[in-house]
Amino acid sequence: MKRIFSLLLLVSVALTGLAQGRWGAATEYPKVNEDNSVTFVVEAKGAQKVSVVGDFTLQAGGDKRHFDMKRGEKGVWTVTTPPLRSEIYSYNFYIDGVRTCDGRNMMRLRDGEQHFSSVIVGGERGDLYEVQDVAHGTLHTVWYDSPTLSASRRATIYLPAGYEQSKKKYPVLYLLHGMSGDETAWVELGRTAQIMDNLIATGKCMEMIVVMTNGNAWQQCAPTHLGGRAMQHYRNGKQGEPSFVESFGDVIKYVEDNYRVIRKREYRAIAGLSMGGGHTFQISREYPKMFDYVALFSAAVRGFNEPNTQQALKAQRDNGFKLYWIACGKDDFLYKLNRDYMAYLDTISFPYTWRESDGGHTWRNWRIYLSELAPMLFVK
Amino acid sequence: MKRIFSLLLLVSVALTGLAQGRWGAATEYPKVNEDNSVTFVVEAKGAQKVSVVGDFTLQAGGDKRHFDMKRGEKGVWTVTTPPLRSEIYSYNFYIDGVRTCDGRNMMRLRDGEQHFSSVIVGGERGDLYEVQDVAHGTLHTVWYDSPTLSASRRATIYLPAGYEQSKKKYPVLYLLHGMSGDETAWVELGRTAQIMDNLIATGKCMEMIVVMTNGNAWQQCAPTHLGGRAMQHYRNGKQGEPSFVESFGDVIKYVEDNYRVIRKREYRAIAGLSMGGGHTFQISREYPKMFDYVALFSAAVRGFNEPNTQQALKAQRDNGFKLYWIACGKDDFLYKLNRDYMAYLDTISFPYTWRESDGGHTWRNWRIYLSELAPMLFVK
Repeated sequence: MKRIFSLLLLVSVALTGLAQGRWGAATEYPKVNEDNSVTFVVEAKGAQKVSVVGDFTLQAGGDKRHFDMKRGEKGVWTVTTPPLRSEIYSYNFYIDGVRTCDGRNMMRLRDGEQHFSSVIVGGERGDLYEVQDVAHGTLHTVWYDSPTLSASRRATIYLPAGYEQSKKKYPVLYLLHGMSGDETAWVELGRTAQIMDNLIATGKCMEMIVVMTNGNAWQQCAPTHLGGRAMQHYRNGKQGEPSFVESFGDVIKYVEDNYRVIRKREYRAIAGLSMGGGHTFQISREYPKMFDYVALFSAAVRGFNEPNTQQALKAQRDNGFKLYWIACGKDDFLYKLNRDYMAYLDTISFPYTWRESDGGHTWRNWRIYLSELAPMLFVK
Repeated sequence: MKRIFSLLLLVSVALTGLAQGRWGAATEYPKVNEDNSVTFVVEAKGAQKVSVVGDFTLQAGGDKRHFDMKRGEKGVWTVTTPPLRSEIYSYNFYIDGVRTCDGRNMMRLRDGEQHFSSVIVGGERGDLYEVQDVAHGTLHTVWYDSPTLSASRRATIYLPAGYEQSKKKYPVLYLLHGMSGDETAWVELGRTAQIMDNLIATGKCMEMIVVMTNGNAWQQCAPTHLGGRAMQHYRNGKQGEPSFVESFGDVIKYVEDNYRVIRKREYRAIAGLSMGGGHTFQISREYPKMFDYVALFSAAVRGFNEPNTQQALKAQRDNGFKLYWIACGKDDFLYKLNRDYMAYLDTISFPYTWRESDGGHTWRNWRIYLSELAPMLFVK
């Protein structure tokens, strides 16, 4: 049968013209070299100027440097970066000013409306983001009913390896995305499934369920998913009332009705980045005694000066919790806001843990924060 | 809080430079016009020649026509297609010979190593492929253990709406992809979840579980998923022994151990396209009395002349089944092979149903075949 399929491959290739770019050299680049530099290659015969821009060249403030590529034979342009730290990197080519993904690289990430090619430099952190030879959890893409928002809404749920065959009940981490994100962001950009699989497999964190919602109240789901109709929604969508925060009880109800979870505050955690950090800041006090673990990643904690909010924060302090973790990068445009927020928390003796990092408002930091937070959760 | 987030949006946009292409005009195109023509727009100031190529221009034999785009002000190129039939279309731009996706369109599809932008023209068939306001099933991305292949392997499983809360047992359709595909193909290119949701909701087919495997024995999962390590596997991978067909019992075992399924032949179906049609052709006879419904879509049915295969086909005929459905397009490069196969089946009085369609070896046809097959399954 093997010979038959080899023959069929030839026939298929010859007749449908699929050979090029599908089974050929297309998978050779980008190439991670032995010194962890990365070589990029793109064919652009007619181009005058070609460069690669990636978050391997991210500067403080969010600007990315262009690496100019050099034209070689047959209009093939190449460049090799300096050695890079172990990480997952996203990048685009600019060909005479037009931003494109890398046609030779199958790995792509969507960040909001923008698509990037991506490459993992392994060794250290990059290994944590790769699929390793460990037991893998399951991802569920569910639709839950939200009576508050009068909509069926999409969420992504990670179940740790062994959930299906076990009779156990599990703790739950609710993990919220930022502005321009949706229910796909934490899995795609945040590598949540890989981080959790790898931390759990090496005994670095407890087994837990991770629930990743869509925090845009006007969206039923990622705009990529719905097709034309959703794109229309997306174009016309407004952040409305009721808010995602008000609807959050619908999420908890769905999860607790449909999964084997421990329905106790000491087994519920909530974390979010940027806008999702703002949601976490709100939800953690508007659903009192629900979460014993709260984490703000580069969080939009605006509004903490309002009297109602301050009263609610005092109530949250009095209700108690096990962890209130605030993480932000020194170059983040929300850094000062978070420092101001903590200065206020100090005045009311609200206990929190501060994690200051390098860098700015980036997925690099949010992946790091998740990998640091998870081991602190649900530990006796 | 609304005002605060508006303010935050402005700050965020100003400081991180995310505005352009993320929340702006980027979502306006491609535009499906009232007459079902589609207008494409791309900015390419420095370009000499820009065209769009999509499967809306697919010719017999698989060639696609280029629609030349016209340069307008500020280097913005546009073209409007003729009115198109309701369908989901994929396309690329060619900018001075470089193939790219549409930076204004969030919807993308991967077909093997190639990425396409996509757009749905609604009304008829396109509506079947859209997310409609009906109850939605759940998608599970699982890893199952395959002792035969000594690997943990990834599969995608569709559960009909209501599965979680029901106590019922369900029939199962095993749905296999073709060459260059993987466990993501039927969901992404085949729109399986939408087709099944919409058919079930309108009473046109029975509730069923759909299991979509990775049919490449040397792959643990889609190469996009694993990152660098898997890309390496993918590059070096060979179609080996044991084969995917030999390992198929591992899939059935996983599904029957982990889901509420009816373990009877009259509630199991198997279907596949191209190489997956070849797998179906093999599996349906090598796992005797397992499947009462068998469907070959543009199937690679090579080997039917071999004496062992013919003996197995006679045994399959004698074992009996409810449906053996053979579908192929008149322009398909496997059309003659399928006609020859049926000529042989006639000589041994092997009962089958022939569905001849227009068109060739395309996802357009496979989506149609799935939407025609599903209503025939598990009907008393």
